[in-house]
Amino acid sequence: MFEKIDLSKRMDKEEYEEIVPDLRKKLASLQREASGLGIPSIVVFEGWEASGKGKLINDLILPMDPRGFDVYEISDPGPEEDRRPFFWRFWVKTPSRGRMAIFSRSWYHRTLVEKAAESEAGLRAGPVTEINYFERELAADGFLILKFFLHIGKKEQKKRFEELDSDPSTTWMITDKSWQSHKKYDKYASAIESLIEKTDFNYAPWVIVEAEDRRFAEAKVLAKTVESLERVIAAAQIPRACDIAAGQVHPIPGINSSMLDKVDLSKAYSKRDYEQKLEKCQEAIRKTQYKAYDKKVPTVVLFEGWDAAGKGGAIKRLTQSMDPRCYTVVPIGAPNDYEKAHNYLWRFWRHLPVAGHFTIFDRSWYGRVLVERVENFCAREDWERSYNEINEMEEQLVNSGTVLVKFWLHIDKDEQLKRFQARTDNPDKAWKITEEDWRNREKWDAYKNALDEMLYRTSTTYAPWTIVEANDKNYARIKVLKTVIQAMEMSLE
Amino acid sequence: MFEKIDLSKRMDKEEYEEIVPDLRKKLASLQREASGLGIPSIVVFEGWEASGKGKLINDLILPMDPRGFDVYEISDPGPEEDRRPFFWRFWVKTPSRGRMAIFSRSWYHRTLVEKAAESEAGLRAGPVTEINYFERELAADGFLILKFFLHIGKKEQKKRFEELDSDPSTTWMITDKSWQSHKKYDKYASAIESLIEKTDFNYAPWVIVEAEDRRFAEAKVLAKTVESLERVIAAAQIPRACDIAAGQVHPIPGINSSMLDKVDLSKAYSKRDYEQKLEKCQEAIRKTQYKAYDKKVPTVVLFEGWDAAGKGGAIKRLTQSMDPRCYTVVPIGAPNDYEKAHNYLWRFWRHLPVAGHFTIFDRSWYGRVLVERVENFCAREDWERSYNEINEMEEQLVNSGTVLVKFWLHIDKDEQLKRFQARTDNPDKAWKITEEDWRNREKWDAYKNALDEMLYRTSTTYAPWTIVEANDKNYARIKVLKTVIQAMEMSLE
Repeated sequence: MFEKIDLSKRMDKEEYEEIVPDLRKKLASLQREASGLGIPSIVVFEGWEASGKGKLINDLILPMDPRGFDVYEISDPGPEEDRRPFFWRFWVKTPSRGRMAIFSRSWYHRTLVEKAAESEAGLRAGPVTEINYFERELAADGFLILKFFLHIGKKEQKKRFEELDSDPSTTWMITDKSWQSHKKYDKYASAIESLIEKTDFNYAPWVIVEAEDRRFAEAKVLAKTVESLERVIAAAQIPRACDIAAGQVHPIPGINSSMLDKVDLSKAYSKRDYEQKLEKCQEAIRKTQYKAYDKKVPTVVLFEGWDAAGKGGAIKRLTQSMDPRCYTVVPIGAPNDYEKAHNYLWRFWRHLPVAGHFTIFDRSWYGRVLVERVENFCAREDWERSYNEINEMEEQLVNSGTVLVKFWLHIDKDEQLKRFQARTDNPDKAWKITEEDWRNREKWDAYKNALDEMLYRTSTTYAPWTIVEANDKNYARIKVLKTVIQAMEMSLE
Repeated sequence: MFEKIDLSKRMDKEEYEEIVPDLRKKLASLQREASGLGIPSIVVFEGWEASGKGKLINDLILPMDPRGFDVYEISDPGPEEDRRPFFWRFWVKTPSRGRMAIFSRSWYHRTLVEKAAESEAGLRAGPVTEINYFERELAADGFLILKFFLHIGKKEQKKRFEELDSDPSTTWMITDKSWQSHKKYDKYASAIESLIEKTDFNYAPWVIVEAEDRRFAEAKVLAKTVESLERVIAAAQIPRACDIAAGQVHPIPGINSSMLDKVDLSKAYSKRDYEQKLEKCQEAIRKTQYKAYDKKVPTVVLFEGWDAAGKGGAIKRLTQSMDPRCYTVVPIGAPNDYEKAHNYLWRFWRHLPVAGHFTIFDRSWYGRVLVERVENFCAREDWERSYNEINEMEEQLVNSGTVLVKFWLHIDKDEQLKRFQARTDNPDKAWKITEEDWRNREKWDAYKNALDEMLYRTSTTYAPWTIVEANDKNYARIKVLKTVIQAMEMSLE
């Protein structure tokens, strides 16, 4: 690929003055338009050291309204970042609707360095797969994704290193490491070529920028950004087919019976049994938690279930003996405005635990395919797509060493009614029950339909669902505790 | 102080069963009430190592709704934290309206460790002062602040260390460092006593908890929290006098003339002069920025000024030659819902640069005493208080080594009118001018009045204002560049 690139491209001052001011004006106006339409954009700058990333990013941002973008410099991950799944640090930086995030280096950087390293042994499992998950998902959500690779030749790099090194204000930029990578220029070149080939898609294209001539490079970066913005703005103005189809019932071919119907809801423990088991389990979870903390294994436990299925009580019994400095309960309700302005997975990525910590989600990302689906809060295309997206996120979690446990707390319709009535009658618990709970209850069948599909599509080998028989609270609480302890112990062995 | 504490206090099971379940119920209901009233709370747990912070925090949170609080474990600062002013990490964790933040260790920890160290030389300048700034400001903003110190004797600590050490799941908790601090128990005790005395206020009281008996300690923590919540809820229901007085004009005793009237707005540069100076300045700022980056000196530049005074253009000229990976422009508009739910300084603390970086605020925290005052967006008591709060924040910034430059871009009323009209007439610039700009213009005198008071009350020795004569854009841009370069150079010497 690189051999086809003509690095001798130059732009003289006259041509530059004719083209560039006009591009800047266009860019400024397109940015405002994209912002008004709520289109989020991601622009990536990768390139050789000293290829001029800093200058070109400045060229790109100066015409734009500074209220509309953020620039992120990606260097080696800090401890907050290194102790979470690889894409955590990028997910938390994804722009909200209408904003642009500009990355100087990106998720490609580490993969490149690893690829160029002598041995391939150090290469993480599936980095290219994870990159594709990330970009495809954001593109499907309406993001503009544009990736520049700034290309200069080996000779030019040497010249630039020498210049930077001889200027006292920039000499610190050129280190031994710079010269070492310079020596490996050809090795890097082939790693870059192969990575670019594997990650060049129409929804997230690479643009190689001939960057030896700064005027030419600026004009190309501006022109390609303008072109991409024009394209994505045009696309945003066509209503999506899915918006029209939204809210229809979704038949699952081949699933005629629900696995929920087979759940034995008569399982129960006597009070005495329960108390004995509870004490044992709580002692065990406390010890296991400290072990996980010591060994830096993170844990995510998520609870879904019918209203009044006893999620709160189960969470309380799970955490009662745990060290509150090592666990967090994240209650998930309707997203606030700030969260709504991001991709729906963004708020979950933000809350992923660092290594050694324990995060409990009280409801979770599955809201997308349950309440959001049933209540038509999102377009059909969006929730249909999200089964895959959820599986991909969970896969990354598990691959990065997280223990992941997913609970569905199951009760039947009669039991729910009994509990609703008990809550209404008890003044200390009346706040727990709202009009919405009664409305949801009326949609029991629609929820069950969504639920069957969720269990079917998101029960994976790496992240299976645990269905908890919850008509008896005692039984449910012990099952939750035992399942979590077992999952953690397995991964700690 | 400690010698008066009776560590032999015990609570038997019977008394515990009588008192504690009732306290838990009360706590749960008060938390919901405080949340409904939008009262934010901060509960701090400090105490001897092995005094049971983890258990007591769990005792406190288990009765509460997990949607209402966050637990923060404060250990040694990470690199993200260490490279910003000391209180940055705590400001970003202040709860939003209606939420509770529970700190296991806190801003007291480092000060304690330093105080107990052999030499007092290591003690930072004014840690107690900064603590008092922080707590007083939040309390004035309606926060509940409650601080527990969990107290156990030296013998009891030894016993607990031995127990933890002999249990395989907790043995890692007890390190050499633990035993070293144990040996210095008495030295720490006197440091703690003196720190508690200096920071015990009615709006942020300390409660010493006799923590040798776990039942007694739990009951005391719950009872004191219940009591504090009851007090703050009662107070929140009385309308504040200030809410009634809001919006009145505020006379400043002794200021009869405005320093703005003395500004020489005829200052100007010819185009040629300007271009020459601009080139020189931009080269200089680029070098200075790299030097600051290399030496890890952070810079904050804030721009305030009349509408159309040329803030955007000045910022563009300032940043044009800078490395975009080292600077950020933070445009400050009306706070969004998420920001509104926090103390007004919270969003500015969040954006403070790490060491070596450069943050430009396009408008700033001074909005509080300008637009929010003039438009009655906040109560009179709130903006009156904020002059001090702003000075205190800036003092902390400067004390932590940040270069701070504050610009007021000054034009006269005629020049503003000319610029508004030019914008209206130019289709490329028409978006820059809104109805609101015209409305603000009508309130010129009210703004000038607020401005005079702002300049008077927030021109401090450590953070002086620079008034920029901005009728001539060329002159203004060069003055901005020169002032920033000079301020940075002074601190880099």
